[in-house]
Amino acid sequence: MKVGVLGTGVVGQAIATRLVQLGHEVCMGARNSDNEKARAFEKQFLPKGTSGTFSDAAAFGELLFNCTNGAGALDALKAAGEANLAGKVLIDISNPLDFSNGFPPSMLTPSTDSLAEQVQRAFPRCLVVKSLNTVTAKLMVEPQSLSSGNHDMFMAGNDAGAKAKVKELLQSFGWKHIVDVGDITGARGLEMYLPLWVRLYGQFQTATFNVKVVR
Amino acid sequence: MKVGVLGTGVVGQAIATRLVQLGHEVCMGARNSDNEKARAFEKQFLPKGTSGTFSDAAAFGELLFNCTNGAGALDALKAAGEANLAGKVLIDISNPLDFSNGFPPSMLTPSTDSLAEQVQRAFPRCLVVKSLNTVTAKLMVEPQSLSSGNHDMFMAGNDAGAKAKVKELLQSFGWKHIVDVGDITGARGLEMYLPLWVRLYGQFQTATFNVKVVR
Repeated sequence: MKVGVLGTGVVGQAIATRLVQLGHEVCMGARNSDNEKARAFEKQFLPKGTSGTFSDAAAFGELLFNCTNGAGALDALKAAGEANLAGKVLIDISNPLDFSNGFPPSMLTPSTDSLAEQVQRAFPRCLVVKSLNTVTAKLMVEPQSLSSGNHDMFMAGNDAGAKAKVKELLQSFGWKHIVDVGDITGARGLEMYLPLWVRLYGQFQTATFNVKVVR
Repeated sequence: MKVGVLGTGVVGQAIATRLVQLGHEVCMGARNSDNEKARAFEKQFLPKGTSGTFSDAAAFGELLFNCTNGAGALDALKAAGEANLAGKVLIDISNPLDFSNGFPPSMLTPSTDSLAEQVQRAFPRCLVVKSLNTVTAKLMVEPQSLSSGNHDMFMAGNDAGAKAKVKELLQSFGWKHIVDVGDITGARGLEMYLPLWVRLYGQFQTATFNVKVVR
């Protein structure tokens, strides 16, 4: 499958690399076409891995990942272009956290909204699915590296077909337990979980942890 | 131990009943001294269980539980009286959820604050520990009824001695895994977890679930 990965940070690198390793063709998009990290990805993975602008990556992909940081996500997606998002599944990983006043971070969105909903409203023809935002980058793509994958991934989105595609992709990453929390308003819970995640990270001094729902 | 339980709802009843069963003396407090549910508790559990106003319960207890609802918590604690809270451990279970606009609920506090911090600021001589707010009432007091207790309880608070007392009490309820997330600002994460909890509740159609941290 052709996949566009928007963002060149730790998350974008992890997602794009894993996708190439699984045999997909991946275009990593950045604000500018001369982004050094995107170029390095391309250099390492050509011909399966290429790079370009947000717009190039969005045009390339049949399925897209938003791996930009929360504060810049909407601008990055505007740069990607509405027409390039239309009709495509977008897996939104970004978290609307504000670290500008230090630790602990606050949320950039009120509790009556979420970044994923803002994205869905801004691009109504895009099929937004919130997922993967509740774990560190390495676990997103190698869930089995922790407790044989015996922990949970969540997802939220309005379109059942889009969620089925995301579920299949997550399973190809190694996720065994995927909990659908309903429509895109469920992203509020997934994003507001982050302040707890950040505290646990601080206490454990490692990001390699996740939660398992026991019932 | 003498314990004051503020609140007569499902949470207050579960906590007060369990405490009496464990041999403690419990006064259940309500806004008015003629509260029917508090009277019924007293009738069932005299002499170990008694009832009164918020002020009566707070004066009675060496240790206190805030089991009021989030919207009314600060008023209930003001009615309990600053002098009756001073120097005592207060386990704050209440969640600042606003269901006035339906489902999903929003938070009554911004992400830069929490109800537990508001309580701690309003009553600086009280030793506030946030805990138990992340599970349904039955699991608070009978954690072993789910998966042999193989799931986690969180707590946050400024005073190490107070948290040690709370940990001991939680262990007497059956909690085996208690994760300290640091000072009282950690309550933000514990409270902002609720929107996810509410979504999971909606999807599972049961409140009998919890999370286990895998690491």
